[in-house]
Amino acid sequence: MDGGEATLEFWFSTGSTHSYLTAYRIGPAAAEAGVALSLQPFNLCALFRADGYRPFPENAPRTLHMWRDIARRAALLGLSPRLPAPYPAPDVPMTNSIAQVMVRRGRGLEWLRSSFREWFENGLPPGTEAATRNSLLALDEDVNAVLTDANAMSNVLALEAATRRARKLGIFGAPSFLVGDEVFWGDDRLEDALAWAKGAWL
Amino acid sequence: MDGGEATLEFWFSTGSTHSYLTAYRIGPAAAEAGVALSLQPFNLCALFRADGYRPFPENAPRTLHMWRDIARRAALLGLSPRLPAPYPAPDVPMTNSIAQVMVRRGRGLEWLRSSFREWFENGLPPGTEAATRNSLLALDEDVNAVLTDANAMSNVLALEAATRRARKLGIFGAPSFLVGDEVFWGDDRLEDALAWAKGAWL
Repeated sequence: MDGGEATLEFWFSTGSTHSYLTAYRIGPAAAEAGVALSLQPFNLCALFRADGYRPFPENAPRTLHMWRDIARRAALLGLSPRLPAPYPAPDVPMTNSIAQVMVRRGRGLEWLRSSFREWFENGLPPGTEAATRNSLLALDEDVNAVLTDANAMSNVLALEAATRRARKLGIFGAPSFLVGDEVFWGDDRLEDALAWAKGAWL
Repeated sequence: MDGGEATLEFWFSTGSTHSYLTAYRIGPAAAEAGVALSLQPFNLCALFRADGYRPFPENAPRTLHMWRDIARRAALLGLSPRLPAPYPAPDVPMTNSIAQVMVRRGRGLEWLRSSFREWFENGLPPGTEAATRNSLLALDEDVNAVLTDANAMSNVLALEAATRRARKLGIFGAPSFLVGDEVFWGDDRLEDALAWAKGAWL
């Protein structure tokens, strides 16, 4: 974090569908706003499990709307995902551990988009072996090296700590944006969060 | 509906918290977009009940965020509600029957704002006798006359029909916006729905 510079934390979890839009939008939007970005993967499934919460039950109207909303908004970004994609993604904390490694390598957003291409274009949700492999190979990463780093105890513990911190901060879904201790939930709150980070709210 | 003119249907239910923002925003936004507006109250509680769904459990992080989000966005509109307000509002279909009457009298949005002033400023949620009375008196309406119209069998049946239609259309929350058979959910989708209504999507 640079001294005095406004920073926005992008909290995401690999199985979150609307994070697809954010993965494409947040880089340019933060740059345009002059806001520094930090990426924070966490394990949203663990929070849902603890609460017995199912955000998108199969065939529920809210689930159909979720896919339709993403399709409509993706079109505005020039994206043509094949939706609905397989859902839910397998509950595999490993994919968020990989996200952490890729964030440390400075390729967090790149990898997230690569992961979404597997899920939303090739029908391979995060947490499947094929998606893990393909999403890394597409970025010319050494799959085994990334997996070794992802499985390192320190990395696994860091993900658990991030997930506990999410809970403590009041984060309950993804994408979420954190500015100081102010939580903004949902891709459609990206602009609000950026305005807040710039102190340009009112 | 005027021939050829784009129309947006605003589906709302009196106990929906985010509809507060919409009640203030939708009139000017639709006028600016040149989109005709029609108001459609329905009984969202009945849909939640049928699904065993509780959108905002007490003290859940999503519930705290919901109030915070409304407070932040209300400030942008120059509004200073006293939040959190009592929640949930009593599950009383009558308030949506009153909404229907006020829509027919051409005062739907005015009444919705009046109802929200009782709830978000005076702490009287819709469905309480005091809120019903005050929200109508503030508009110089004859409370007994409105209640008589609201309780008329035809009005009660119309609300039930609207609620069934909501279910059939895939509406699952409020506010929702309907353009043709395209459903947009949430106050933050108002601009998307208006763009869709104008045929200005892509």
